[in-house]
Amino acid sequence: MSRKIRVTQIGLGPLGRMISPYLAERKSIEISSAVDIDPGMEGRNLGELCDNSRLSDIDITADLEDALQANPQVAVITTVSDLDAISPLVERIVSHGIHVVSTCEELSFPWVTKPEVASRLDRAAKKHGVCVLGTGVNPGFLMDFLPTAATTLCREVDSLLIERIQDASFRRLPFRQKIGAGIEESEFRFRMAEGKIRHVGLTESMHMVASRLGWELDRTEDNVEPVLAEKTMSGDDWVVEKGMAAGVNQIGRAFLGDREVLTLVFKASVGETNPRDRVKISGIPEVDLTLAGGVNGDIATCAIVTNAVPAVCEANPGLRTMVDMPPLSCLR
Amino acid sequence: MSRKIRVTQIGLGPLGRMISPYLAERKSIEISSAVDIDPGMEGRNLGELCDNSRLSDIDITADLEDALQANPQVAVITTVSDLDAISPLVERIVSHGIHVVSTCEELSFPWVTKPEVASRLDRAAKKHGVCVLGTGVNPGFLMDFLPTAATTLCREVDSLLIERIQDASFRRLPFRQKIGAGIEESEFRFRMAEGKIRHVGLTESMHMVASRLGWELDRTEDNVEPVLAEKTMSGDDWVVEKGMAAGVNQIGRAFLGDREVLTLVFKASVGETNPRDRVKISGIPEVDLTLAGGVNGDIATCAIVTNAVPAVCEANPGLRTMVDMPPLSCLR
Repeated sequence: MSRKIRVTQIGLGPLGRMISPYLAERKSIEISSAVDIDPGMEGRNLGELCDNSRLSDIDITADLEDALQANPQVAVITTVSDLDAISPLVERIVSHGIHVVSTCEELSFPWVTKPEVASRLDRAAKKHGVCVLGTGVNPGFLMDFLPTAATTLCREVDSLLIERIQDASFRRLPFRQKIGAGIEESEFRFRMAEGKIRHVGLTESMHMVASRLGWELDRTEDNVEPVLAEKTMSGDDWVVEKGMAAGVNQIGRAFLGDREVLTLVFKASVGETNPRDRVKISGIPEVDLTLAGGVNGDIATCAIVTNAVPAVCEANPGLRTMVDMPPLSCLR
Repeated sequence: MSRKIRVTQIGLGPLGRMISPYLAERKSIEISSAVDIDPGMEGRNLGELCDNSRLSDIDITADLEDALQANPQVAVITTVSDLDAISPLVERIVSHGIHVVSTCEELSFPWVTKPEVASRLDRAAKKHGVCVLGTGVNPGFLMDFLPTAATTLCREVDSLLIERIQDASFRRLPFRQKIGAGIEESEFRFRMAEGKIRHVGLTESMHMVASRLGWELDRTEDNVEPVLAEKTMSGDDWVVEKGMAAGVNQIGRAFLGDREVLTLVFKASVGETNPRDRVKISGIPEVDLTLAGGVNGDIATCAIVTNAVPAVCEANPGLRTMVDMPPLSCLR
């Protein structure tokens, strides 16, 4: 590739800081600017923040317009999971003719859950000739793109069981906090009731898969339960006492009539002994696909976002999803 | 879908006869005509040929123009593996504004092996606003689309090992003949030297993967060896005596400089005890994906072709490959 794709990184929390070096090391990409609304970050240096010398000539700004002065072609947004919160930002960026790749879970397939926002973003993206994509390891790949693609092998699909069983011991701290590792069961249930312990995206994944199988779902469920530690466990910067919550077991179910056609098991806890990602298709033929050991979600999400950057530049304009644009790849 | 996609089935050998019922059972597809150049088939009935009553109102013709009178939107071509042999037919169909899905292995990714034909077909398809796609289980999915898509999870890819280990006991007769099951080793080597025992497509798969990883390969190899039967084995309509060829072990290798970056192992023999499809990516992170038991290639090829029919109607015009169009799915 003769000219590098210029990227602005928006959101410099743990995920944004982790993604920046992935972007910077690609021959085809250069980071042109970096934005965070935290005024304490203003003027700090991206290289220092990410502990990566390649990024030392990027000063962080709190002002989006500043960042857009650097003429990026793609904005990578790693801020929040809530589509309503992020959509004004997406629209503003799109209006400058800049493609968007975001880890916003609700952006991965908003066509059923938030159809009005989806349509608005789609129209704006088409008007300005750019692509908007919400992606990441999950939602975005393991529980939607991969199962959908695997059904290509099938004459008939009756149902899918999709498992993501993770050992959270080696994930970043915010992930362990998000799954409630180390807190009392009562506290877990309290936070659960408040909606604070919940992987966002199972519903989006179910609608994404259903859309490509021609299934008009009658209803979906998404339920959370704690996984309780059977013994005391610890890692570099964490301890989970016996009897405390070790993580989350969240199950999404989708129904055609009374028939459960999609079962998504998202189990993430410290000390999980058999981590795996699996797609089991009941149909003709049966398909049983396993990623041995499971996929490290932090690395994979950063990789997927990075791999999406050249892809959105070539995709058809509009709000795209992982199942309606050409498959990504690790294009160095 | 309000209107069915009209399909003409071209080529009524074992694969064409197997695919027709798959097409006919889809709500969104109807077979409008069927063609075979064998004059002995002229006027016979597709339903009788395929033993499927849904197809009994389709008379087989040897005349392509006859078949095109039925106004198909998509032609499914299951004739030969040789792109030079099939390309005039593809061009003729495309000139009528009809999309093409073909199991022609060399059509799956002809950009490197036959670039002039590829460019000609691409131009013709774009001129007439249609999509041309070569696909099937392999090449088309297991050793190219799936590994390419799996690299999406990766920050870096050093090399890929792609295995397709098949038990040929339950495949159709022409497949067992193609892999030399049941013949003497000397006869196997004679046919091998003539190029008659060879899975077509490993080279195409290697170039397909490389194209999406940004690898400009320095060279590729594709070598065949017999698998010899360690004991006498038999099935419904076949016997392989001890010491005879039980099948083929074909290995494709692709190199960047002296470094082997792609290794494709295609082993198909009767009596294989550990059939599997596997993609192992050496990189960051390591990815080890297995389809337990392997995929039945006959069923999967028919399914993939059927699943490609709605996909080509929505794809961008031109010569497409499985790695540069949106992923297929089992859209009923």
